[in-house]
Amino acid sequence: MSYVAPLKDMLFVINELAGLSEVNALPGCEDASPETVEAVLEENAKYCSEVVGELNVAGDKEPSFWKDGTVTTTKGFRDAYKAFAEAGWQGVQHPVEFGGQGLPKLVATPCIEMLNSANLSFALCPLLTDGAIEALLTAGSDEQKRIYLGNLVSGKWTGTMNLTEPQAGSDLALVRTRAVPQGNGTYKVFGTKIFITYGEHDMAENIVHLVLARTPDAPEGVKGISLFVVPKFLVNEDGSLGERNDVHCVSIEHKLGIKASPTAVLQFGDHGGAIGTLVGEENRGLEYMFIMMNAARFAVGMQGVGVAERAYQKAVQYARDRVQSRDLAGSSGPVAIIHHPDVRRMLMSMRAQTEAARALAYVTAAAYDAAHHHADDAARKANQAFYEYMVPIVKGWSTELSIDVTSTGVQVHGGMGFIEETGAAQYYRDARILPIYEGTTAIQANDLVGRKTARDGGATAKGILAQVRRTEEELSAYASGDLAVIRNQLAAASKSLEEVVDFVVAHSRSDIKGVFAGSVTYLKMAGIVLGGWQMARAALVAERKIKAGEGDARFYAAKIATARFFADYFLTQAPGLRTAIVEGSAGVLALAEDQF
Amino acid sequence: MSYVAPLKDMLFVINELAGLSEVNALPGCEDASPETVEAVLEENAKYCSEVVGELNVAGDKEPSFWKDGTVTTTKGFRDAYKAFAEAGWQGVQHPVEFGGQGLPKLVATPCIEMLNSANLSFALCPLLTDGAIEALLTAGSDEQKRIYLGNLVSGKWTGTMNLTEPQAGSDLALVRTRAVPQGNGTYKVFGTKIFITYGEHDMAENIVHLVLARTPDAPEGVKGISLFVVPKFLVNEDGSLGERNDVHCVSIEHKLGIKASPTAVLQFGDHGGAIGTLVGEENRGLEYMFIMMNAARFAVGMQGVGVAERAYQKAVQYARDRVQSRDLAGSSGPVAIIHHPDVRRMLMSMRAQTEAARALAYVTAAAYDAAHHHADDAARKANQAFYEYMVPIVKGWSTELSIDVTSTGVQVHGGMGFIEETGAAQYYRDARILPIYEGTTAIQANDLVGRKTARDGGATAKGILAQVRRTEEELSAYASGDLAVIRNQLAAASKSLEEVVDFVVAHSRSDIKGVFAGSVTYLKMAGIVLGGWQMARAALVAERKIKAGEGDARFYAAKIATARFFADYFLTQAPGLRTAIVEGSAGVLALAEDQF
Repeated sequence: MSYVAPLKDMLFVINELAGLSEVNALPGCEDASPETVEAVLEENAKYCSEVVGELNVAGDKEPSFWKDGTVTTTKGFRDAYKAFAEAGWQGVQHPVEFGGQGLPKLVATPCIEMLNSANLSFALCPLLTDGAIEALLTAGSDEQKRIYLGNLVSGKWTGTMNLTEPQAGSDLALVRTRAVPQGNGTYKVFGTKIFITYGEHDMAENIVHLVLARTPDAPEGVKGISLFVVPKFLVNEDGSLGERNDVHCVSIEHKLGIKASPTAVLQFGDHGGAIGTLVGEENRGLEYMFIMMNAARFAVGMQGVGVAERAYQKAVQYARDRVQSRDLAGSSGPVAIIHHPDVRRMLMSMRAQTEAARALAYVTAAAYDAAHHHADDAARKANQAFYEYMVPIVKGWSTELSIDVTSTGVQVHGGMGFIEETGAAQYYRDARILPIYEGTTAIQANDLVGRKTARDGGATAKGILAQVRRTEEELSAYASGDLAVIRNQLAAASKSLEEVVDFVVAHSRSDIKGVFAGSVTYLKMAGIVLGGWQMARAALVAERKIKAGEGDARFYAAKIATARFFADYFLTQAPGLRTAIVEGSAGVLALAEDQF
Repeated sequence: MSYVAPLKDMLFVINELAGLSEVNALPGCEDASPETVEAVLEENAKYCSEVVGELNVAGDKEPSFWKDGTVTTTKGFRDAYKAFAEAGWQGVQHPVEFGGQGLPKLVATPCIEMLNSANLSFALCPLLTDGAIEALLTAGSDEQKRIYLGNLVSGKWTGTMNLTEPQAGSDLALVRTRAVPQGNGTYKVFGTKIFITYGEHDMAENIVHLVLARTPDAPEGVKGISLFVVPKFLVNEDGSLGERNDVHCVSIEHKLGIKASPTAVLQFGDHGGAIGTLVGEENRGLEYMFIMMNAARFAVGMQGVGVAERAYQKAVQYARDRVQSRDLAGSSGPVAIIHHPDVRRMLMSMRAQTEAARALAYVTAAAYDAAHHHADDAARKANQAFYEYMVPIVKGWSTELSIDVTSTGVQVHGGMGFIEETGAAQYYRDARILPIYEGTTAIQANDLVGRKTARDGGATAKGILAQVRRTEEELSAYASGDLAVIRNQLAAASKSLEEVVDFVVAHSRSDIKGVFAGSVTYLKMAGIVLGGWQMARAALVAERKIKAGEGDARFYAAKIATARFFADYFLTQAPGLRTAIVEGSAGVLALAEDQF
C-alpha cells in the first residue's frame, strides 16, 4: 500500500510542541513562516508518496547489485534520485550560499521522516550526503567548499562516511587506513573500509568519500585520526570531472534488510594510492566526524520514526480490511479485526510510540535551530545543551522502539505478516539495522552517560526535568480524567528519572562499570519519560483547543487518548527501569566470562 | 557455529525444579529414572547437534521448493529425518502399545527443545506429527489407530493439522471445507486449506492430514465442525499404500523465516473428492482439535525456548571472539566485547529470559505427567488445572520473548549481525512466526483470561500464587544479599499479579472489552512473575547446594546471579504492567475506527 504522510500530525507537533513560531522569529529563519512550511511539507509529501514510496517493495525484491566493481541500483532509483535532486530536496536545510534552501532543521526533519517512511533504503543516500555537507561546512577549506559543496547540496554528487574497517567498528581507535602526504598538498590513501552505505552506486556523477585515516607520524588511538575527502572521480580546477580515483568497490553485503541500499566494501589505493585532501587539521578527524555524526545520528533516529509510521499505517489498513471473529460485545457476524481489543492495543502501542518519538525529535530539532540562530548567547548555549542531550536519545530510543513497532505490525497481520508478499515483514527486517549503525544503542548510551550527563554533573538533565515538572504543574489543574492520570504517571516517571540521573552522576567515577551496566536502560527510560512528557504537552494543547472550540475536536481527542495510552503503558515502566539501573548491576556483572 | 545442548542446565531444571524423582515415582513412569533420562538426553543432544543442527543454515539458504505439485526439501533433510525416525525420536512420549518409548512429557520436552534449537524448520515436522498422534489417540477409532498410529509413532509417516482457510484464520467458525458422506463410512472432502506446515514434502512415504470440515447438515459456526483424517495415499486393508488421494499441494509460501519448512496451500477434492474418515463424532472436531492444539501450543512454546537458547549461544561465542575497545576499568589494549557492561547486560537478558521460560515449561510438563499418571484423583485434577493455566503462558510468553532474545542476539553482533552470512539474523527471522501460529498471542491470552482465569473465578491462578508465596517465605530466611533482593522483587510482582487476577475475575462480564484490552499484557505479566518464581526457586536450590558444598559451586553461583538479574530487570516490570492492565483500557479503547 501507498504511504500517506501524516501531515496533520506533523504540523501539530511542529506548531504546538516544537514551536515553529518561535523558530520562525529567530534571526535567519524568517523564511520559515507557517505557510511556507506547510507548502514545503505538502510538496515533499507528494514526492515521497508518489515517487520514492512506490519503489520500496521493488528495492527489497530486486536489491541493488554489484558486478565487476560497479553497483547497479534498483530499477527506478536513478530517476527518483534525479527528481529528488532537481526538486532541491537535498538542500532543504543547507546554506543558501551553496545553493540550499536554508530552512531550519525543524522543517528539514519532517522531510527526512517522510523520505524514510517512503523508502528507508533510498533515504540513506541523501542522509549520508547531508553528513558529508555538514563535515565540509564545519572543517573544510575554502577550496574544498568551492569544489564540493555546491554539487553536494544540489544533489548532483553524493557523499559517504568511511569509518568502519574489519577490525574497527565501534572502536575507531583501531582504524588502520593510511594517508601519505605527497608534498603537493594531497595525500595518497591506502586501506579497506567496510559497511560503506552507498559507497558505490549509479545514481550520481560523482561520490565524495569522507575517510578516516592515519598520517605516517600520527599518534596511536583516536588522537591520531585525520579526516580526508577522497572523491570517486578527481575534480579538475574548472570543476569538471577528471580521472577515476583509486578507490574501488570490491563487493557489497547480502543483508537482512534495507537491501536496495548498497553496503560497500571499498578498497583504497590498491593501484598506487587514492588521492585525497585533508579536511581541517591533522589528527582532529574524530572531532569533525563527531559533528557530522551528531547530524547523522539524529537522522537515523528519524529513520526509526519513519519506518514505525509506515508500519503503523500498514497495520491500520490491514486491521480495517481483515474480517475475523465476532465483536466481544456481540455482533451479527464476524467484524473487522480493528474492533478486537488486543488489535486496538497493538495499534495504540504502535501509534503512541511513533508519536512520542516524533514529538521528541521535532522538539530537539527546534532546539538545534535556537542553538544556531538565537540572538542571545545564553539561550544558544542552553539549547545546544538540550540538543546534545537529546541526540543519543532520539537515535537510540527511536530506533529501538522501531523494532518493537515493526514487530507488532507483523503481529497485527497474523499469519499473513510472515509471508513476504504482504510487505509487513520488510519493515521488521529493515528496522533491525537502525539501532546498530551510526553508533549502536550502547554507544549512544555511553555518550548519554558520559558526555551528556556525568560531565556537567547532571545539570542539563536536571534542567530538562525542571521543564517536565512545569508540565506536571500545568496538568495539576485537572483533578480527574485523562489529564489527571497522565500527570500522575508522568510525575512518578520523572521522579524515577531524576533518581537515575543522581545515581549516574554520583557513581560514574566510583563504580564506572556499575553505571554503564545500566546505560542502555537509562537511555530507554529517558526516551520513555521525555517522550511521555511531549505526549503530556500534546494532551494539554489538545484539551485547551477542545475547550476553546478550536479546530478538529476528534483529532484533539485522539491526541489525549494516545497520550493516556502512552502514560498507562509506557510511563508506568519508569519505576521498574529505575530499579534495574540503580540496583541491577550486581546481576549484570556477576558472571565470569567462562560462566556464560 | 554448532549447537551445544545445555544439558547441565536442562538436568538442573528437570531434577531440581520440575522434580523428576516425583515424576519417576508416578505409576507408569517407572522407566524414567534419572540415569535413563540422562542417557536419553545425551543421545538426543548428539543427534540434534551433529545431524539436524548442521542443516539449519542450509535450510535457510536453500529452502524447500515446490514444483509441479511436489515439494523437495532442503538437501540433507530426508536423510536427517530417516535417522530421526530410525532412532525412535518421534516416539519418545507416545505409548509403548503403538511402538513409542512411553516416557513422560518431562523427558520429551527437553528433546523437543533440543530439536528446535538445532533446527526450527526441521523440528516442525515431528511437532505436527505429535499433534496428529495426540488427536488420534484421543478420538480415533480402533481402526484408525490400527492403520495410522504405528506408522506415525515410528516416524514412517508424518502428520499435519489442517485448520486455516483464506477466510478462516483465528476464527474457525468461518471454516468452509465440506465433507460429504459416501454411505460407505468414508467422506469426500472438498476445500482449500492454507498455511499447512509440511502439508507436502519428500521425507516420508505418506502424510496423514487431519482436516477440519463441515458435513452437509452441520450447524453454523464452531459447533458444526468435524475432524477428518485424509491421508495423502490411501491405505489398503493390509496396511500397504494404495492410490494417491485427491489432495494436492498447489503452492508453498515465500516466508520471512523457517524457510526450509514448507508451508503448503492444499487443495482437497478438485478431482472428484479427497477420501477421508471421520475422527470421533460429527461436530465435535473443534474439541478434539483443542486437545491436539494444547500439545502443539506447548511445543511451540518450546520452539521459543529453543531458538532463544541457540541465539544466546551464538551471541556468547561472538562476544568472546570479537575484540573491540578497552575495558572500562582500564586495559592495555582492546578486549573481547564480553567484558563491556552493556554486552553483559544483553547476554544476561538473553540468558535469564531463556532460563526462566525453560524452567516454567519443564515444570508445566511435569504437571502434565502428574495429571495423567498420579494415583490420586485430586492430585490429577490439580495438576491438570495447573497445566491448562500454564499452556497459553508457555506458548505466548516464551514465543514473544524469543523475538526479544533473537533481536538482542543480532544487536550483540553489531553490524555483522545484519549480514545474513553471520547467521544471527536467521534466528530473528525464524522466531517471528512463533507468536503467530498455533494461535496468536492474543488467542492465547483470550484462553488465559476466559477459560483459564475467569471460568473458575481465579481459583487456579490463586492456587498457583499461593505456591509462589511459599517460595517467598523460603526466601525470607535470607535477610540480605541476592536472595533477599529476589524475594522483594518477587513479592511485589506476585502481589501485582494477584491484583490483576482479581481485576480479571471481577470485570470479565461487566467490562469484557476492558478486560480483554489487557489480556496480552496479563499473559506477559503472568509469564514474568511465574518465570521469575522458577528463577527464585532455582536460586534457593543453588544457595543450598553451595552451602552444603554439593556439586559445582560456580554453576550454582551463576544460577543465583541469573535469578538476581531476572528479578531486577523483569520482575520489576510487574507493577507497571498491573497499572496498564487495570487502568489502561480507557486509552486502548478510546478511538473510533476512523481516528486511527
